[in-house]
Amino acid sequence: MGTMSFRDSMFLLAESRERPTHVGSLMLFDRPEGAGEDFLGDLHRRLVSGDVAVARDFRRRAVRSMTTLGQWAWVEEDDLDIEYHVRLSALPRPGRIRELLELVSRLHGSLLDRHRPLWEFHLIEGVEGERFAVYGKIHHAMMDGVTSMRHLQKALSTDPDARDMPPFWAVERRSRRSTPDDEEQGSSGPLAVIGGAVQGSWHAVESVARTTSSALAIGPALAASTLRGISGQDLVLPFEAPPTMLNVPITGARRFAAQSWPLKRIQRVRERTDSTINDVVLAMCAGALRRYLLEHDGLPDSQLVAALPVALGKGEQGGGNQLGAILVGLATEEADPAERLRRIQASGRAAKDNLVGRDPMVTAALSAAVAAPIGMGVLPGASSVNQGFNLIISNVPGPKDPLYWEGARLGGIYPISVPLDGQALNITAMSYADHLEFGLTGCRRSVPRLQRLLTFLEESLVELEEAADAQA
Amino acid sequence: MGTMSFRDSMFLLAESRERPTHVGSLMLFDRPEGAGEDFLGDLHRRLVSGDVAVARDFRRRAVRSMTTLGQWAWVEEDDLDIEYHVRLSALPRPGRIRELLELVSRLHGSLLDRHRPLWEFHLIEGVEGERFAVYGKIHHAMMDGVTSMRHLQKALSTDPDARDMPPFWAVERRSRRSTPDDEEQGSSGPLAVIGGAVQGSWHAVESVARTTSSALAIGPALAASTLRGISGQDLVLPFEAPPTMLNVPITGARRFAAQSWPLKRIQRVRERTDSTINDVVLAMCAGALRRYLLEHDGLPDSQLVAALPVALGKGEQGGGNQLGAILVGLATEEADPAERLRRIQASGRAAKDNLVGRDPMVTAALSAAVAAPIGMGVLPGASSVNQGFNLIISNVPGPKDPLYWEGARLGGIYPISVPLDGQALNITAMSYADHLEFGLTGCRRSVPRLQRLLTFLEESLVELEEAADAQA
Repeated sequence: MGTMSFRDSMFLLAESRERPTHVGSLMLFDRPEGAGEDFLGDLHRRLVSGDVAVARDFRRRAVRSMTTLGQWAWVEEDDLDIEYHVRLSALPRPGRIRELLELVSRLHGSLLDRHRPLWEFHLIEGVEGERFAVYGKIHHAMMDGVTSMRHLQKALSTDPDARDMPPFWAVERRSRRSTPDDEEQGSSGPLAVIGGAVQGSWHAVESVARTTSSALAIGPALAASTLRGISGQDLVLPFEAPPTMLNVPITGARRFAAQSWPLKRIQRVRERTDSTINDVVLAMCAGALRRYLLEHDGLPDSQLVAALPVALGKGEQGGGNQLGAILVGLATEEADPAERLRRIQASGRAAKDNLVGRDPMVTAALSAAVAAPIGMGVLPGASSVNQGFNLIISNVPGPKDPLYWEGARLGGIYPISVPLDGQALNITAMSYADHLEFGLTGCRRSVPRLQRLLTFLEESLVELEEAADAQA
Repeated sequence: MGTMSFRDSMFLLAESRERPTHVGSLMLFDRPEGAGEDFLGDLHRRLVSGDVAVARDFRRRAVRSMTTLGQWAWVEEDDLDIEYHVRLSALPRPGRIRELLELVSRLHGSLLDRHRPLWEFHLIEGVEGERFAVYGKIHHAMMDGVTSMRHLQKALSTDPDARDMPPFWAVERRSRRSTPDDEEQGSSGPLAVIGGAVQGSWHAVESVARTTSSALAIGPALAASTLRGISGQDLVLPFEAPPTMLNVPITGARRFAAQSWPLKRIQRVRERTDSTINDVVLAMCAGALRRYLLEHDGLPDSQLVAALPVALGKGEQGGGNQLGAILVGLATEEADPAERLRRIQASGRAAKDNLVGRDPMVTAALSAAVAAPIGMGVLPGASSVNQGFNLIISNVPGPKDPLYWEGARLGGIYPISVPLDGQALNITAMSYADHLEFGLTGCRRSVPRLQRLLTFLEESLVELEEAADAQA
């Protein structure tokens, strides 16, 4: 039996039927040339045949009992029911992306079975255009979002001719963060917690919040005043975010939408406006959110604020990057897209400058202060009335080269995140080959017509392109 | 806002992620002649278009707040998201009954969203043989199993040419039991509770138990001694059931299996052995359970005991039949099928004789005593160590004539029940036209290879047929 870190057990303790705490990902594949309609069914049959070993990580089950003194711990499941975890599904006709997103939204809304290792893989046939999809779901206590995305990539190959590949759940992880011995390695100080949470993460904001906000015992008021003393002109402070329709308690059902954009288009805007990819991604989101809130008669007079996980270079612990969380003002009340982008650039730069080069202890404290409200919204019994920010937007670098699974080309890979009480919408962007993939995850009740945001993202990018061309 | 009866609110209070408390049903339809593959998709589109009114019962949502003094109550949902409740799904190839049961097992294992009216309908395309299926799921607090099956039937027609029929959720119910004003009509005395629970019910055993065991304050020990004073030779007393692999705490995942048998075969055995349909159904189950437990090296030396809801003629309240719950010994340790059937006949007759003709108050008390252990297993905090019986077996009369929905012939209708802590398997049989339909619902972990029981039911029936022929 292995201990479970305080941080990981928080994800189990905070979970409820309104707030499932698992992360997911959707992968879209082209069937290999010449493969028939039975390709996926045959693959599924082989994968559940019992011939495929299951990695140790995927055999861990969470338990809590008298023996563990009521604390959560990991035990190894000796009788894994592989057909339960690896499932074959199908889309109703005509099998468009619309039907796929509908199915994935449903699958992402249901709770994982705590009597089993906390993961599921769904192979989905019947996607039009000779494609199939894989939806993977794993509990945040087992693996954070970015770690799980990296894990998925490790099971893929750049070689289109590779066959009989070990599936996702057969690949052993080697990251220290995730071993059951986590806490036994003396990595539980506040800085190590930050360092440990890092190994890349679009969920790291939450991890940081959940652990350091309590470890450092920084109250939000204290945090704000600490920041106020060192703030510059463009720096957004915590608790400046206006209340919106997105900042309400959430229910259990989910809506998920996803789309790819050519990286070239975003790079062109970046070059012509002297900004970063991050700036352009944030500006796309800002324009889309403005249109969405206008359509729902709910655009506030002051700007929306996004929390953004950022990497800050090597950490002191040697393992992985030092991570910070920054607040960026989205200038959503500004009608002019060029001016909006300019303000986003300035706000992001100020927030990052504020973290870079500081004593690591201060960096940790500042990031925790930014992220503290997340922890508050999720910790049982805490209130979620005060908004530190309106939503989390993440931008994660993904695989550079096209990847294959059993000869099937990965056409797109989309992260599916965890909406929180008070943050009913999450936007995550990830690069893959020559595309930028957006995944939008929302509470089905609080974020109606979520798919409209895809249209608005496109319109927002077109606006930016026009502004960039005019500028150049 | 309407009050919720104590009985109905118990189903919400007792529910956990291990013990979803909804009932379900699976209906299998033949596509109408000449209808293409888009038949179900087109039907779904019409049903969620917003043109179809939703009945008041299906707009009720359960709430509990300060205003309701912490008690559960019903409110009307004014913004019903019909696409959430009525879903289109599909089977993976080849779309056999096996794939259908797998999908339905999954759907039955997930919790309903308490922020919405507690029901879902899944239209399932891709069933081989030009068929489609409908899986309906409704919370026990809204409707008990038999009521919901009757409700489904009301939405069907004996006329194959009927079209534009109001769907299941558009049909208003007229039963007194289920109106929100339930308790306001002075029907909350112990007898009325039994009478009210009746309107036919394969779940009535549970309803009776949950309400009367507390209303009458009969402890199991008292109950047993009460029965002992009036018992005959063949009467099975509570707490005589041996522990088996089926009598353990359950987990949340489900396995569902279903199959039809021609009524003729069962009637032939009945006639040649001078027994009832109920006797033959119980004998089929007894033989199947014997084989199943032998295969798992877990057949106890003493016989398994089934609890069986029975109707006892008109109740005093005028509304519906008087309901009782009886215990029947299944003679599972007996190898000879003819002798096994004889003992089941005797046990069933003794149990029923014990109830019939008694003072209604005694009938109620006896049934409550029989059913009490169910309530104990489900009430929060109660222990489930002592077994009053091993499983609930129900046999419910269904529609006599073939039914149609939008021209599609109903080929089979199978009830899906609620496994309980301590009763990991439930068997329900229902007649429909010239068939008897069995639905087996089990905890996925505690009842492995549940579908084997279908084979064993067939083998058991063949044994009985041979024994009956030898006897005649």
